[in-house]
Amino acid sequence: MTQDHNTALAAGWRDGFPTAGHAVQRPRERAIFAPPHNRWAFSHLRELQPTRNVWRGNGPVAQLPRALRPELDSLPFARFGDGAPTDWLGALQAIHADGAVVLHRGRIVYERYFGALGELGQHMAMSVTKSVVGTVAAMLAADGALDEHARVTHYIPELAGSAFGSATVRQVMDMTTAIDYSEEYADPDAGVWKHARAGELLPRPAGYAGAEGYRQFLQTVQAAPGAIRHGDAFAYRTVNTDVLGWLVARAATQPVAEVLSALVWSRLGAEQDASFAVDWQGAEFAGGGLCCGLRDLARLGEAMRLGGFYNGAQIVPEAVVADIRRGADPARFALAGYTRLAGWSYRNMWWVAHDAHRTFTAQGIHGQALHIDPVAEMVVARFASHPLAADAHLPTSMPAFRALAAHLMGEGG
Amino acid sequence: MTQDHNTALAAGWRDGFPTAGHAVQRPRERAIFAPPHNRWAFSHLRELQPTRNVWRGNGPVAQLPRALRPELDSLPFARFGDGAPTDWLGALQAIHADGAVVLHRGRIVYERYFGALGELGQHMAMSVTKSVVGTVAAMLAADGALDEHARVTHYIPELAGSAFGSATVRQVMDMTTAIDYSEEYADPDAGVWKHARAGELLPRPAGYAGAEGYRQFLQTVQAAPGAIRHGDAFAYRTVNTDVLGWLVARAATQPVAEVLSALVWSRLGAEQDASFAVDWQGAEFAGGGLCCGLRDLARLGEAMRLGGFYNGAQIVPEAVVADIRRGADPARFALAGYTRLAGWSYRNMWWVAHDAHRTFTAQGIHGQALHIDPVAEMVVARFASHPLAADAHLPTSMPAFRALAAHLMGEGG
Repeated sequence: MTQDHNTALAAGWRDGFPTAGHAVQRPRERAIFAPPHNRWAFSHLRELQPTRNVWRGNGPVAQLPRALRPELDSLPFARFGDGAPTDWLGALQAIHADGAVVLHRGRIVYERYFGALGELGQHMAMSVTKSVVGTVAAMLAADGALDEHARVTHYIPELAGSAFGSATVRQVMDMTTAIDYSEEYADPDAGVWKHARAGELLPRPAGYAGAEGYRQFLQTVQAAPGAIRHGDAFAYRTVNTDVLGWLVARAATQPVAEVLSALVWSRLGAEQDASFAVDWQGAEFAGGGLCCGLRDLARLGEAMRLGGFYNGAQIVPEAVVADIRRGADPARFALAGYTRLAGWSYRNMWWVAHDAHRTFTAQGIHGQALHIDPVAEMVVARFASHPLAADAHLPTSMPAFRALAAHLMGEGG
Repeated sequence: MTQDHNTALAAGWRDGFPTAGHAVQRPRERAIFAPPHNRWAFSHLRELQPTRNVWRGNGPVAQLPRALRPELDSLPFARFGDGAPTDWLGALQAIHADGAVVLHRGRIVYERYFGALGELGQHMAMSVTKSVVGTVAAMLAADGALDEHARVTHYIPELAGSAFGSATVRQVMDMTTAIDYSEEYADPDAGVWKHARAGELLPRPAGYAGAEGYRQFLQTVQAAPGAIRHGDAFAYRTVNTDVLGWLVARAATQPVAEVLSALVWSRLGAEQDASFAVDWQGAEFAGGGLCCGLRDLARLGEAMRLGGFYNGAQIVPEAVVADIRRGADPARFALAGYTRLAGWSYRNMWWVAHDAHRTFTAQGIHGQALHIDPVAEMVVARFASHPLAADAHLPTSMPAFRALAAHLMGEGG
């Protein structure tokens, strides 16, 4: 698959788009997640979807000093699982990375682009979006605008008939709602894809009779069968973030994109506006629809690494960052059965490792990552378009980030 | 209609979009040009359509000093046609203006927003887009990258089977091609709307079997019946600009949006990125799909007023601006039968008045305008969402601009 994928990129680009009539064309049947077309599509989502702007404000760009470390490309490490040897650049290629930026002590020590992405481009952040929305929601909660102890229906009466109606805002924020919904990416009938079809991120079949828009779909989600109740266990379900986005919009009486701009993006010294995929009802795809430049994503990671203080201002309250870093209850997380993430938790939509480096990380399907290592003073921002949605990038993600951290701390240099 | 239109605006806005379930909802059947929904839609096009970014670059914003003249609101003038008395603000309200900025000697003397537009918003420029694309094309021609004497097929072999194949680039630039195509906005089956449906700017009926994308539609356009030949007469046809956009993309080997950014938008000191509606094949709607902030449109007008020199640089070559100001042949223009525009011409997609003030202007349906009056040292940028597409704004456009010019020159103060 790799070869086809890369061949697709090299061939037939004209007028800014894969040429009609050429063997490699625009995403077939508008299936933007399907390889090989996903590679172009993930770097050009706003050319395929309605979007809402996330304004960068009109302040100066926050400069990122450069201190490139060319040796990083050949930094060796062993893959998860099979233990096979690889290196940093080889791992990026293996996961079909579209770009990677590494900051060490705030300086760019690595920056590379691949595929259809460049330094001025934007890439779909997939579920890295969740951590951004979770942070914004936690900021509203810290500010008193969003009550984490309230029921979801306090803000969204429209969800009274769904399983979300009886959940608290906090249960949504930590994904401990008990809902009947599948996040099985390999199953085309999974709830996650029904949700995507409701928002027209995926094409609809002829005679489509499902929900119109993300928020109408949320109203149809029912309680999990059996004895499990809200709060019992972590279960990674994208729709929680879309409920959280709706909560953010209601609490702030602004669309999610505007809240994000006001609270974060306009204060970050971002180089570019970001962009949020919206459905035809105007709802952001809060679970995965943020598109942004890679260096701007790294700036956000740097702000989180520094306890929320960046570009001369306390952008995210220090208490919000501290709460994320403390994480949630690993016992509830363990019930989700992620054997490769033993001891982890999920707090305000961030993955928290509870490891010696106190790392916390945002992850998205097809290989997206924003990885923060406070002890190594390191931030890794990575975009990718792996042909497979889930997990295929894992063997070359965490071990690569750990090797990098050790190297930058001088243990592996 | 006015009352409904304004009532629509006041009512039912929640979560950033007209509320589902409320009497006033999102554009019905996705018909974004239909009132009253057009008012919201024209100020939020990228939330309804795929778009391509027009990057502002990373330079500082070109400051526009303010010297507001509050008396302009009540500036009286007589409407075209019936001669009825009105005033500047009344005329803006009558045409459903969404915003107006007036520059006099480079200073903002008037700035007001209405409807769903604000100073940070963007509005669809409609056919004002044509003048922007025409200017970019003329810049490429001046630079030698685009040969105005060449046949269209020299750059676009795909158009060999259409009427455009035998036209020259210059004939496309001045809209003197002889094609079988209707620009009758009141006729839902007119070519202009077929073109829009091909690009999915308008919704397609069930069982749609027309062209897929703007450029496929262009390939179907046939020669005008009868004896008329390319070059004989001016005929205002949107598809010419879409051919010109395709020519620009081919000559520059970049999408139109990127050419516009590189040659103009990134040098203008714009406040915002602009946005270009694209179809699912990635082609810009060059005839009408530019969306931008109102002050940025005024900056472009100011650059044109100043012979192309603005923000410390010769953005548009002086010879290109001079060529536009000289205009085309009014005799060929007269054949189009615009009785209210006697003596005018159309050059590089600008309307040229050949009047004492040497005014030249960009115009778009539903009331869009970028009006440049070199003698009065005045630029007017105006966005609107008049319920009717064509001409309804004319009685309050040119006479309003003339009254304003006279006033600012001290004749009417």
